[in-house]
Amino acid sequence: MKFATEYLWFETKMARELVRITETVAAIVKKGGIREGMVLVSAMHITAGVWVNDDERGLFEDIWAWLEHLAPKGPDYQHHRTGEDNGDAHLKSLLVHHEVIVPITNGELDLGPWQQIFYAEFDGQRRKRVIVKAMGE
Amino acid sequence: MKFATEYLWFETKMARELVRITETVAAIVKKGGIREGMVLVSAMHITAGVWVNDDERGLFEDIWAWLEHLAPKGPDYQHHRTGEDNGDAHLKSLLVHHEVIVPITNGELDLGPWQQIFYAEFDGQRRKRVIVKAMGE
Amino acid sequence: MKFATEYLWFETKMARELVRITETVAAIVKKGGIREGMVLVSAMHITAGVWVNDDERGLFEDIWAWLEHLAPKGPDYQHHRTGEDNGDAHLKSLLVHHEVIVPITNGELDLGPWQQIFYAEFDGQRRKRVIVKAMGE
Repeated sequence: MKFATEYLWFETKMARELVRITETVAAIVKKGGIREGMVLVSAMHITAGVWVNDDERGLFEDIWAWLEHLAPKGPDYQHHRTGEDNGDAHLKSLLVHHEVIVPITNGELDLGPWQQIFYAEFDGQRRKRVIVKAMGE
Repeated sequence: MKFATEYLWFETKMARELVRITETVAAIVKKGGIREGMVLVSAMHITAGVWVNDDERGLFEDIWAWLEHLAPKGPDYQHHRTGEDNGDAHLKSLLVHHEVIVPITNGELDLGPWQQIFYAEFDGQRRKRVIVKAMGE
Repeated sequence: MKFATEYLWFETKMARELVRITETVAAIVKKGGIREGMVLVSAMHITAGVWVNDDERGLFEDIWAWLEHLAPKGPDYQHHRTGEDNGDAHLKSLLVHHEVIVPITNGELDLGPWQQIFYAEFDGQRRKRVIVKAMGE
């Protein structure tokens, strides 16, 4: 059994940002010599997400507008009594989920032709981490 | 360590359709001789979902109405500048997620009594794939 | 290869309740002697969820209000023709997802500093289960 574990650090310039990490994840799997298995890509923060979808600029705009519609930024969250102002970022993280599992076949990420892995930052401008852990043989 | 990998092909007659795949996934696990482990069931497309829930016709209607309410089909997505018309299908996929992991115990899918695995097509009438990858012993 | 499988039983007093289970999951991993791997935490019911987020009381209120807004309890679900009255609980489960995978590194749950695992009951006051299955070495 083989494992590969790495931590990706992000410090986005914007409060909200999408970062494509497919190639980084693929490189970790390759370096770890894992030919068959699965790789978990999981945000270690509660105000970020990880998803697999299309790398298309218009769609990004649609996703941000949609997330803002369903989980709007605002002053009215109870969570803000703690001094935080990022209640919306927690809800956005719950909505899109904070992790994905990607299958590994023949040493490659076994993704469909349009599938890319993204780190979605909902409350950036600080150092945050994603764990990438591959497991297999 | 044992692995089993198969690709399920779908070409639904309707643009939106639910297909129950519990039995197909269970058969792949059994054929692979995996007694303990996990099986990943993951859509390889960005306009489809995979979920575990109840197999009940009324609930299906509720889910479709709810998805349409939260991520409506419409002409106004930025993504449509590419010539596509399926912006809503991307959002629906993000909402319900494109994959599940099912535990395997004693050679069986270790699901609760009402849990069934579904492939949810949000933009069908073309050939699309789901990867099923089991890993264990 | 090592596996650890346990079933957690819940019978919440309220119809909706959040139960923190991080420590229980960590103890199962430790008892199973798994130093590297992944642990799946998956509700075996279709009206419950499992998520990873912050353990903060104000945020809980925000999450419940938000879930109620996006998937409201009501008499109008088609699913209720079966005699059930929990259509909203199914939708809430789809929205937040019914499972998470947590990485295991050096025998510990490899979570970020604010990440806690929660069982989210959407239709309680009856006995329900979560499977915890760890896999690794």
